[in-house]
Amino acid sequence: MELKYSELGLRQKGSNIDQLMADALRDPGMLSLAAGFTDNSTLPLAEVKAIVGELEESTMVGRSALQYGTNQGSPRLRNLLTRRIEVFDGVAENSYSEDGMFITNGSQQGLYLAMQTLCNPGDIVLVEEPTYFVFLEILRGLGIEALPTPMLDSGEIDTPELKSLLGNLSESGDLERVKALYLVSYFANPTGHSIEFNTKCALGHILRETAPHIAIIEDAAYRDLYFGEPFDGGSVLSGDAFDGLSVLYSSTLTKPFATGLKLGYSLCSNSDWLARMLAVKSQQDFGSANFPQVIMEKMLEFGHFDKHLVTIRESYREKMEVLNTSIQPLKDLGWSWHTSLGGLYLWLKAPIDVSTQFGSDFHKQCNAAQVMYVPGSLCYAKNSQLDGVRLSYGVLELDKLTEAGRRFLSAAISLKEINLV
Amino acid sequence: MELKYSELGLRQKGSNIDQLMADALRDPGMLSLAAGFTDNSTLPLAEVKAIVGELEESTMVGRSALQYGTNQGSPRLRNLLTRRIEVFDGVAENSYSEDGMFITNGSQQGLYLAMQTLCNPGDIVLVEEPTYFVFLEILRGLGIEALPTPMLDSGEIDTPELKSLLGNLSESGDLERVKALYLVSYFANPTGHSIEFNTKCALGHILRETAPHIAIIEDAAYRDLYFGEPFDGGSVLSGDAFDGLSVLYSSTLTKPFATGLKLGYSLCSNSDWLARMLAVKSQQDFGSANFPQVIMEKMLEFGHFDKHLVTIRESYREKMEVLNTSIQPLKDLGWSWHTSLGGLYLWLKAPIDVSTQFGSDFHKQCNAAQVMYVPGSLCYAKNSQLDGVRLSYGVLELDKLTEAGRRFLSAAISLKEINLV
Repeated sequence: MELKYSELGLRQKGSNIDQLMADALRDPGMLSLAAGFTDNSTLPLAEVKAIVGELEESTMVGRSALQYGTNQGSPRLRNLLTRRIEVFDGVAENSYSEDGMFITNGSQQGLYLAMQTLCNPGDIVLVEEPTYFVFLEILRGLGIEALPTPMLDSGEIDTPELKSLLGNLSESGDLERVKALYLVSYFANPTGHSIEFNTKCALGHILRETAPHIAIIEDAAYRDLYFGEPFDGGSVLSGDAFDGLSVLYSSTLTKPFATGLKLGYSLCSNSDWLARMLAVKSQQDFGSANFPQVIMEKMLEFGHFDKHLVTIRESYREKMEVLNTSIQPLKDLGWSWHTSLGGLYLWLKAPIDVSTQFGSDFHKQCNAAQVMYVPGSLCYAKNSQLDGVRLSYGVLELDKLTEAGRRFLSAAISLKEINLV
Repeated sequence: MELKYSELGLRQKGSNIDQLMADALRDPGMLSLAAGFTDNSTLPLAEVKAIVGELEESTMVGRSALQYGTNQGSPRLRNLLTRRIEVFDGVAENSYSEDGMFITNGSQQGLYLAMQTLCNPGDIVLVEEPTYFVFLEILRGLGIEALPTPMLDSGEIDTPELKSLLGNLSESGDLERVKALYLVSYFANPTGHSIEFNTKCALGHILRETAPHIAIIEDAAYRDLYFGEPFDGGSVLSGDAFDGLSVLYSSTLTKPFATGLKLGYSLCSNSDWLARMLAVKSQQDFGSANFPQVIMEKMLEFGHFDKHLVTIRESYREKMEVLNTSIQPLKDLGWSWHTSLGGLYLWLKAPIDVSTQFGSDFHKQCNAAQVMYVPGSLCYAKNSQLDGVRLSYGVLELDKLTEAGRRFLSAAISLKEINLV
């Protein structure tokens, strides 16, 4: 069994996600505020059954739902999704082209293909802090360095400081190795923050001026999941500020519809980059499953998707408020956070001197109280901040959410009592 | 738009498959004996509709079909598929463990993960000749060298010659870079050949003796698609000859059931290698779509899969015979081939001096006659043999198959006439 692995193979270590899964499996009484899963009770099974039930057995069109699709993904689905982005961005119909879009096995595969085609091991990708921790796992797996952008307290990128950083990288000869800037832009995982359009434009100007070879990757996974209004700000596909830059807009149908269909999509402004990502996808799987694509096509076409969004936005808003209410007393213990305007997460900051990382006293108290969270340190490139907590209200039902919040609170109280002793 | 690509990104060139697709799209009157698609008219839409229709909306179990699955894939589906391999291999139940199995987006993703974890660019993988040409595309995309094994006229690997080859590689210091031996073992794509169990055992002994670090990857994609009896010979998972070697058995539910559900599976004998492949999969997509997995689980459980196999085996056998009959006169023109005992392909050898590659006179005649095939040269690592043709009888209906065969024949006759002038 003495295999000789590749460098990539040797790099693979047990992931942070494995650790979370193991915690969940060890104790069946555990309530999870960690998993970024969606709400089981609102999953659109009735709609999916209706759509599948209407596929005509007697026609080639009906049967072809079970045939191979194409590597790039269903043209009709790409068309419908491209039109949706235009509406969000407030640009004229057909401003964007579905030729630039490809369908992936969750949006994650699009991010992976982007990284494979741009980065050698040792290359650099700029990330916000905190950022989507699964993206950091992708970088780690491919041997890519995640370099944090300077951040303001508001959660926005500090653009003048970023410009200085790029200047320093240029002087040290490292700028060529910086291949992309990764942004989580709407109701972000983990913070719930949305990036102001002005900030995006400032980033566009800086990159055009100093490093036009750096691609902007915008992860808009939660853009559909607003509670009140859509966030007022276009994507990096819109506006002159990004002209001449290569941008990849990445989003998903998993979180706003059905994670089980596992469909993501990416729209790329650079046709040469797109062709290379598609070539790699043709080697990796030669196209995502066609059957879920046919189902989603019809969901969008017949308006079921929009109707479903109305339901789940209200459902997630209610869940957010229930969890938020149940943990309110934490504020008296020195914890702080904002309520969310969309997405699936509350992002908490623990009091001074309280670490929330794996193995910390607080983590142990939560294990004892049978409640799980994602330690915020996972969302930092160098695990540098130890006081963050990501709580997800996506999965648990309302009564369980209240109970999980209560347990989380009790863990914080227990820790305080221990520290006072 | 001046991106700086990775080495992998720079390596991506237009693929041979793109060329085939372009040919198909250019001429709507074209009949394709090239595509390895399956038969539209036997796709199991009624069965899929029935299974989906029975998912209960009121229960968590029903709804969870639309929830995320796991990275490794449905435990129930892995259990059912592992038991099927045991039956094929004629070993006792539970000889193999579903813990070693993972579900992928088509079997291709499993092959890709295997190559990513084993091979650096410049490493070597041993392949039969001819071999599955999409696997050669995977190797090319990852910068891996495909090294042909010596072959006998019977289509079996020449094991004594392979031993010599390994000895030479050892002397030249290249043996360490040889990471795997890739076998297409049942009713192979493109030849229809099945590998004798004795040959597999001989290969096992040679590798154990000379290079136990070389993994055996057995691609059994067409094992279910026999026309008469299953091929009488176990996989490399069975028998003592492979003890101590790392083997990966790869197969699929696409070809024998529904390509649109795009489910493949791999069973790995080496848990450390498996863990590394799963880690990469967790970065690439964190698990294949769950909904198709739930559908397949029930198809297997309720016996629909086996019933479907009975139907399509007979359907493909009939199609093979229709195509075979329609091209019989080719034999008088110096073409040769065997009928198939399973799978989706006839593998033809053109007469001396006739090249079948892209752009050859014969290829042009076929384009003019509106019929497509896969040039055999694509199935050779160095495109060294120019006289092969792969004809697929999977897609076209019987009357179209006859017509496509007639067109292929007419192209051969036209070429002969031109050459006689």
